[in-house]
Amino acid sequence: MSKIRIGLDLYGGDNAPESTIQGAIFAFENKFLEDAELVIVGETTEEDKKKLQKYNVSYLEGKNLVDNTTKPTQILKLKESSIYIGCQNMKNSNLNAFVSAGNTGALLTAGTFVAGRLKGIKRPALALALPGKNGKPRILVDAGANAEVKAEHYFDFAREGIAYAKFLGIENPRVGIINIGTEEEKGPQLVKEAAEVLKENNINYIGFVEAREIFDDRFDVLLTDGFTGNNILKTIEGTAYYILNELKSSIKSGGLFTKLGALMMKGSLYSLKGKIDYRQYGGTFFLGVNGHLVKAHGSSDSEAIANALYVAYKASKEDLLSNILI
Amino acid sequence: MSKIRIGLDLYGGDNAPESTIQGAIFAFENKFLEDAELVIVGETTEEDKKKLQKYNVSYLEGKNLVDNTTKPTQILKLKESSIYIGCQNMKNSNLNAFVSAGNTGALLTAGTFVAGRLKGIKRPALALALPGKNGKPRILVDAGANAEVKAEHYFDFAREGIAYAKFLGIENPRVGIINIGTEEEKGPQLVKEAAEVLKENNINYIGFVEAREIFDDRFDVLLTDGFTGNNILKTIEGTAYYILNELKSSIKSGGLFTKLGALMMKGSLYSLKGKIDYRQYGGTFFLGVNGHLVKAHGSSDSEAIANALYVAYKASKEDLLSNILI
Repeated sequence: MSKIRIGLDLYGGDNAPESTIQGAIFAFENKFLEDAELVIVGETTEEDKKKLQKYNVSYLEGKNLVDNTTKPTQILKLKESSIYIGCQNMKNSNLNAFVSAGNTGALLTAGTFVAGRLKGIKRPALALALPGKNGKPRILVDAGANAEVKAEHYFDFAREGIAYAKFLGIENPRVGIINIGTEEEKGPQLVKEAAEVLKENNINYIGFVEAREIFDDRFDVLLTDGFTGNNILKTIEGTAYYILNELKSSIKSGGLFTKLGALMMKGSLYSLKGKIDYRQYGGTFFLGVNGHLVKAHGSSDSEAIANALYVAYKASKEDLLSNILI
Repeated sequence: MSKIRIGLDLYGGDNAPESTIQGAIFAFENKFLEDAELVIVGETTEEDKKKLQKYNVSYLEGKNLVDNTTKPTQILKLKESSIYIGCQNMKNSNLNAFVSAGNTGALLTAGTFVAGRLKGIKRPALALALPGKNGKPRILVDAGANAEVKAEHYFDFAREGIAYAKFLGIENPRVGIINIGTEEEKGPQLVKEAAEVLKENNINYIGFVEAREIFDDRFDVLLTDGFTGNNILKTIEGTAYYILNELKSSIKSGGLFTKLGALMMKGSLYSLKGKIDYRQYGGTFFLGVNGHLVKAHGSSDSEAIANALYVAYKASKEDLLSNILI
């Protein structure tokens, strides 16, 4: 396979398939995919195909069989579903990457068991780039794939996170384990054992990190179990929304001066909103499987889909996965 | 004991003992303690006693033996420490409440083993009031006391959280368990079992709640293990600081218009800062022990100490603890 081929799930996500098609157009118009071929997996209508005919797009048949009620393991029987087909084509090396905004559990299961795990990796995990001080991103692994983990899995998470960090241009990424204190004796047995596992391996392991430091510049890769990671992620989201809403309502209930002030600050307030919206980073990698599997947010609009495609393309071009097995 | 007696740890916290003494003065000047007697536990200087002589203050001897390096279990041997003495006096019913900004681990251990657990409670826990939409607080339990828990402990956490919610005026508090999805089959075994435990008991249990809903008005009491709870709390803190800092630096680097706008919005921005600073709520209860044990934040200034005293006084007066055993 010489040409890069990026798969895109036509289905899944609150705004699909419109957002998928529009996202593809947005990606091509903005040259996000450069010389790559986009492969839309679904039952694309002739009308939509017409919209895309001037771009480098091909099609794979895949059915719309998965929704929010689909249980993770069910996907293994839905062999005609777009998610299954997408993952299968990564396994066959027919696709370098696959982007989907669909059911997370189903996608991760298909990633693990249809695309299959990379040799040497027991636990693929969701790796997410968060904004950080100085404009530098930091990577959170596992952001929600593995609700129950063992200490040894932190070594997988570390390699996955490091690969992602390197892909984002961070040399020799500093790795920390999220804990409720930075002292070695703090926290549950699991994280203490995980720290030992990392120390035994050739990793730039710095120590424990408290969640309040997530946005600071002391660590590049933050490791935790999928339960905690997902809670942290959703807490960031909930807090950011709460703060922006409080600000909005205080502007609304404020006097003319406040309203005028807000208007004058509009640019700053918008750029703030952009900075804390991690979704603009364009998707989360499910790392550790055969292929660059990108989970786009369920509420992705066309721009978010285009960003996810961009990330998938860049990861494929630079072969992010080759960094995992160190 | 007819009169309410509130103990205050002279030591502990970054700004002690100055913040402690000033906090006491602030509390009296603002009538936070009404008719209660304040009992300062420490080695109060004559100079400080003079500052407090016009208020209703008495003193208990206690030494400054605990710092950030003190391990939790060490406190049990430090019988002359202010923390030990404070907890011992709650056990003896000589104090209704004890407020400390000192070492959390030591304080919780002293609470559990020196003050002792309430009958019927296996796991005391940190219960914290977070701001929420519509100005209604919500309670997070456990915010960091128990890093490793069993499903049955969620029943203790629920009763502790409900008691706190009722104390804050919430009738029939709605209880949720924090999980990575709201569907019953989601999440680790522990939270599924915990849900069963709550269903078997006479509790207004609503279901799972995702961390992004923390500030919403669907639940009043949010239950989780101490590891996750502490991470959530610190994530809120980290996110809020990050957002405010980004806003600040975008104002700084903005043009004259932006700066002028910010000036005009100053009131709104300040009130925002207040709303997201959970520390203004004046401390966290360690509930489930004999006495109203309030942990003030380590970085408490005099106003935060005064708020913690106010909360301790009100809880004592209304006998918050009597609500725990339902």
